[in-house]
Amino acid sequence: MILDRINNPKDLKGLSLEELKTLATEIRNVLIHKMSISGGHFGPNLGVVEATIALHYVFNSPIDKIVFDVSHQSYTHKILTGRKGAYLSDDSKWGVSGFTQPKESEHDFFSIGHTSTSISLACGLARGRDLNGGKENIIAFIGDGSLSGGLAFEGLNVGGEMGKNLIVVVNDNDMAIAEPHGALTHYLRKLRETKGEASDNYFKSLGYRYYYVEEGNEISSLIAAFSKVKDTPVPVVVHIRTVKGKGYTIAEDNREGWHFHAPFDIETGQKKGQGIGENYGFTVRDFLLKKMAKDPSICVITPAVPMSCGFNAEIRQKLGNQFIDVGIAEEHAVTMAAGVAKNGGKPIVVSLSTFYQRSYDQILHDLCINNCAATLLVRNGSIWGDTDETHLGFFDIAMMSNIPNLVYLAPTNCEEYLAMLDWSIEQNEYPVAIRIPCNKLVHTDKQVEKDYSILNKFLVTQQGEKVALFALGDFYQMGEEFAEAIEKEFGFKPTLVNPRYITGVDVELLESLKAKHQLVITLEDGIVEGGFGQKISSFYSSSQMRVENMGLKKEFTDGVKAAELLKRNGITIENLLNKIKSYFK
Amino acid sequence: MILDRINNPKDLKGLSLEELKTLATEIRNVLIHKMSISGGHFGPNLGVVEATIALHYVFNSPIDKIVFDVSHQSYTHKILTGRKGAYLSDDSKWGVSGFTQPKESEHDFFSIGHTSTSISLACGLARGRDLNGGKENIIAFIGDGSLSGGLAFEGLNVGGEMGKNLIVVVNDNDMAIAEPHGALTHYLRKLRETKGEASDNYFKSLGYRYYYVEEGNEISSLIAAFSKVKDTPVPVVVHIRTVKGKGYTIAEDNREGWHFHAPFDIETGQKKGQGIGENYGFTVRDFLLKKMAKDPSICVITPAVPMSCGFNAEIRQKLGNQFIDVGIAEEHAVTMAAGVAKNGGKPIVVSLSTFYQRSYDQILHDLCINNCAATLLVRNGSIWGDTDETHLGFFDIAMMSNIPNLVYLAPTNCEEYLAMLDWSIEQNEYPVAIRIPCNKLVHTDKQVEKDYSILNKFLVTQQGEKVALFALGDFYQMGEEFAEAIEKEFGFKPTLVNPRYITGVDVELLESLKAKHQLVITLEDGIVEGGFGQKISSFYSSSQMRVENMGLKKEFTDGVKAAELLKRNGITIENLLNKIKSYFK
Repeated sequence: MILDRINNPKDLKGLSLEELKTLATEIRNVLIHKMSISGGHFGPNLGVVEATIALHYVFNSPIDKIVFDVSHQSYTHKILTGRKGAYLSDDSKWGVSGFTQPKESEHDFFSIGHTSTSISLACGLARGRDLNGGKENIIAFIGDGSLSGGLAFEGLNVGGEMGKNLIVVVNDNDMAIAEPHGALTHYLRKLRETKGEASDNYFKSLGYRYYYVEEGNEISSLIAAFSKVKDTPVPVVVHIRTVKGKGYTIAEDNREGWHFHAPFDIETGQKKGQGIGENYGFTVRDFLLKKMAKDPSICVITPAVPMSCGFNAEIRQKLGNQFIDVGIAEEHAVTMAAGVAKNGGKPIVVSLSTFYQRSYDQILHDLCINNCAATLLVRNGSIWGDTDETHLGFFDIAMMSNIPNLVYLAPTNCEEYLAMLDWSIEQNEYPVAIRIPCNKLVHTDKQVEKDYSILNKFLVTQQGEKVALFALGDFYQMGEEFAEAIEKEFGFKPTLVNPRYITGVDVELLESLKAKHQLVITLEDGIVEGGFGQKISSFYSSSQMRVENMGLKKEFTDGVKAAELLKRNGITIENLLNKIKSYFK
Repeated sequence: MILDRINNPKDLKGLSLEELKTLATEIRNVLIHKMSISGGHFGPNLGVVEATIALHYVFNSPIDKIVFDVSHQSYTHKILTGRKGAYLSDDSKWGVSGFTQPKESEHDFFSIGHTSTSISLACGLARGRDLNGGKENIIAFIGDGSLSGGLAFEGLNVGGEMGKNLIVVVNDNDMAIAEPHGALTHYLRKLRETKGEASDNYFKSLGYRYYYVEEGNEISSLIAAFSKVKDTPVPVVVHIRTVKGKGYTIAEDNREGWHFHAPFDIETGQKKGQGIGENYGFTVRDFLLKKMAKDPSICVITPAVPMSCGFNAEIRQKLGNQFIDVGIAEEHAVTMAAGVAKNGGKPIVVSLSTFYQRSYDQILHDLCINNCAATLLVRNGSIWGDTDETHLGFFDIAMMSNIPNLVYLAPTNCEEYLAMLDWSIEQNEYPVAIRIPCNKLVHTDKQVEKDYSILNKFLVTQQGEKVALFALGDFYQMGEEFAEAIEKEFGFKPTLVNPRYITGVDVELLESLKAKHQLVITLEDGIVEGGFGQKISSFYSSSQMRVENMGLKKEFTDGVKAAELLKRNGITIENLLNKIKSYFK
């Protein structure tokens, strides 16, 4: 294998075009094989094998600096920069991060997992270069789907004015995670159809010289284009047309399904292992579809993650006006929801905890100051969600629960979740966010509350004494276990509370607990600092009641699984019992 | 006066063109007169008198819906929609909000004070209309300066795809607050120079029909253009060329200085009242200029608020590469700073507490996960900052202090501020934010710490007993007063602490206080929930130490001054002494 000789981008320089092509085939095979074992961002990586080889052939990394947007398409880059071992291994564990990671290599400049940041980062690298009199090339490699993000525009707009070396490679595979959205998508299609000659060139209007590469999976075309722009004194865009999932027909034919893929059988494309079975995503989908059929003013808005609520292409099509994928544009999704609510619609935004970080100001300024009755569904706000350091769902409680007017709800099971959602859709007074449980789907046969309009009314699910456990959201089941363990160990029944509301405290309940309780323990699936438990601590800290906050330390963990996180943070029965012992010795 | 007859937009409909022109002159005179008494957003409002009259003449508000971006240019709109009394009054108080405000009028749809939101809000209104089968026109009125914001792009991009009635009026006065920035600015200039005919039309590339109005201060041209696009079935952009400060020569000649202006003498343009004297803005400017002259790798980045660090046009020019105004693009400013830091530069971002809300994810994901050594200067994070509900600076502690890796510092006086800034610029380990004090500038003759690299080391400024006061940032002087009052009232000297670090607690100090103290009082210039004091409460809540958190309630207040806020939130000596009495009775 030629790949055997490649340990560094420099090793590419002596290869002939034929050898580079062979290398591309080898790498593609390695990627398919490895992802069939370990899963991964399939489509994006297969599409850019040639482009990555060509970049490293033409430019001199790490002097020249390549920033991969989102960076989930950086597998070939990693293979070429000293990390091929991880990809050649048959171990089902990856061994390297799925994203660029400076700790792994001097060829990676940033840990990146959110989209649309590459151009701004590149602008910064370019300005740092200019401050220090450097001469290197700065390259941002960004997919067409990421261009809909406001930050990508801000970066393009500033980069276009800087008038210095800045190379933006637009990797156009005509897809975001799902089909791309926004008017720019249609314009890019025009550019593809005219081989880059369409009038009203978006990139030129923003100050860039523009180059189009029709064959973005042909190494020779790519090398020619990159060579032309190397050492450019002005900002340029190189627009390359690639095929998502290139080289694996099953993926080329189903590009959304193969954006990310679980381990699979290479012959058939069949997923290995079991399906995930009943889950909150599909449950809410069925609920919403029924509800939307009855009420045409309900509208689901999602920033490029329609499958978050189980909406596949067919459903999206059928919903017409009632569904809008705004593309990767988390800010817009929330602000638009405020507008929909203001004009008689009932908007539901669906996104992930980590991506709502993009919408902090839109939630606060657009939605909450205006008290617009929109619903935000928050997925993966949990230790059971993504574990990559760029996708952690531990911060949303601290982020959202301290925004005035917002009602942030934490359901503890399926029935409660749907009841809260139903209430939120029907009410017209509050912006509401719902933190979707992320542990195993739990059903209850108890009656759940239908009306959540009396805010901050916590639910006591077990009346007890001495110790009260406040177990928030999907940590509620842990609360039940803890309560049992306490009773077993100490012989008294503790009080168990399902707080339901994250954004406030139930003053009446908290006061009443003082009579028969000496210790409150708060349990939350997120960082302690700025979180729910600290509101309880703050309430009680001027009284005799003792409070212990159980939750996560404020830190970025990378690839650490839920079980390990619980242990590290002392969220264990053993630790709980020890704590209680120290109070009641 | 014709204005006497105008109480509602409907009253415009019967006026002749000549009468409309006279009305414009009348309104302009009213605005100049009123702002000479009360101050206000001078330039933006004088520039759009005609456009606002023409909009209300052609469209039927509130059925047709106009959303003013930032909305600080909505004075004429308010005059035409039943609120002229406030503008005709010689009272130095305004009587109405300086922004659109739904509580005031059915013609105002949103409370808005941040830029670049109007198109997304309009998209939402349009979708709400379509869900309910409505037919009205939806208009976003946005300045060229606001187009650099990523959210404006996201809105344009989604709006351009919706294919329905959506009218975006681009009010182009060739200015942001200062001169505008970004490549789009240059493109808009080309459009102006070619009367809208320049090739590579940005708006067309995003799916809009495009109309150019050369005379944006001529009512007849405006009426013609708006009439043409009324009831358009597809999205359109009407690009109107206006003059900021139109009709008041002094303002036309100094457009940055007259963006907002304090009360002034109409004859001379001289500001009434005294200058603000020595302040943190000018102090940091002088410090930075010296520092930047010595070290060419230092670079100041600001999203369109260069005067936040006292950088006027002349200084900006002189700094060359070392200064970059990225235009209204708060996300980009922070992400770019991460890039600059990564490539050997020392970036300092300057913005306001309320605008950093736009950068939450950029601070967390781009800066802090990557631990880039950039400095964020946070202005107006205070009750002494802006009082408009859209510009409150009460939320940044809750927002930023819970982000991992960030070191958020709270200096208590001028010397400490500059020492922290100096340390932050020189160090290479942490992303650092500094909350600039907002009360009167305070000097100290005590030696201040130069090295802040041992994190979370609080400073005990007075050793005492029983009660410890943790007085954060610009509430420190209040802490001194409180300490004195306690000593006077109760005869013991309390301990006084300058925490300095907002992002963590000094465990050693906190433990040691347990020996001789029974009560800790935290004082912070921000909301209590999610804030600094709750970290202290959380620490102590499992011990016998009692804690009282003093700070603001989590709410949006509008136009409430600092003194009143302190009173409302019980941050008074009287309340403090009462609290202490209840502990030590």
